[in-house]
Amino acid sequence: MEELIGTFAGFFTTVAALPQIYKAWRSKKVDDVSPKMFYIITIGVFLWTIYGILKADVPIIVTNGISVVLNCTMLVLIYRYRTVYNG
Amino acid sequence: MEELIGTFAGFFTTVAALPQIYKAWRSKKVDDVSPKMFYIITIGVFLWTIYGILKADVPIIVTNGISVVLNCTMLVLIYRYRTVYNG
Repeated sequence: MEELIGTFAGFFTTVAALPQIYKAWRSKKVDDVSPKMFYIITIGVFLWTIYGILKADVPIIVTNGISVVLNCTMLVLIYRYRTVYNG
Repeated sequence: MEELIGTFAGFFTTVAALPQIYKAWRSKKVDDVSPKMFYIITIGVFLWTIYGILKADVPIIVTNGISVVLNCTMLVLIYRYRTVYNG
């Protein structure tokens, strides 16, 4: 049971950035989005990926590795579309 | 070493929502932020909290429990300040 809940939890937290990426890509508007949040998430999931490598835990490596890519994508969109420089 | 990296990873992913909460609270502007993202994150960290309870893993319970509260706070701010209804 725990493994099933862990799998779903990992799935949701991994794909969470997708709607924000889609919204930013479609609207080209990101000024209300905090770049700092995506920096901090990216550092966090990068560290979780390292943690997974040290523990040889494939699910942790895969879910957090995908999150690193998605959150970096969002950072690129923020720098490409933002018109104000704060927060 | 792994435990130290896991602790930092947990810290970063837990506090990640704070800059977005502060930016939304200060600017009162959230239209570019995706509510769906915060729904998905909230479901994910809620499931991680349940996972932690089933495994009796206190760090997982605490970090994800805090994330549930922070991400719900952001959802409240989104519904309080948004002026458009999409994404």
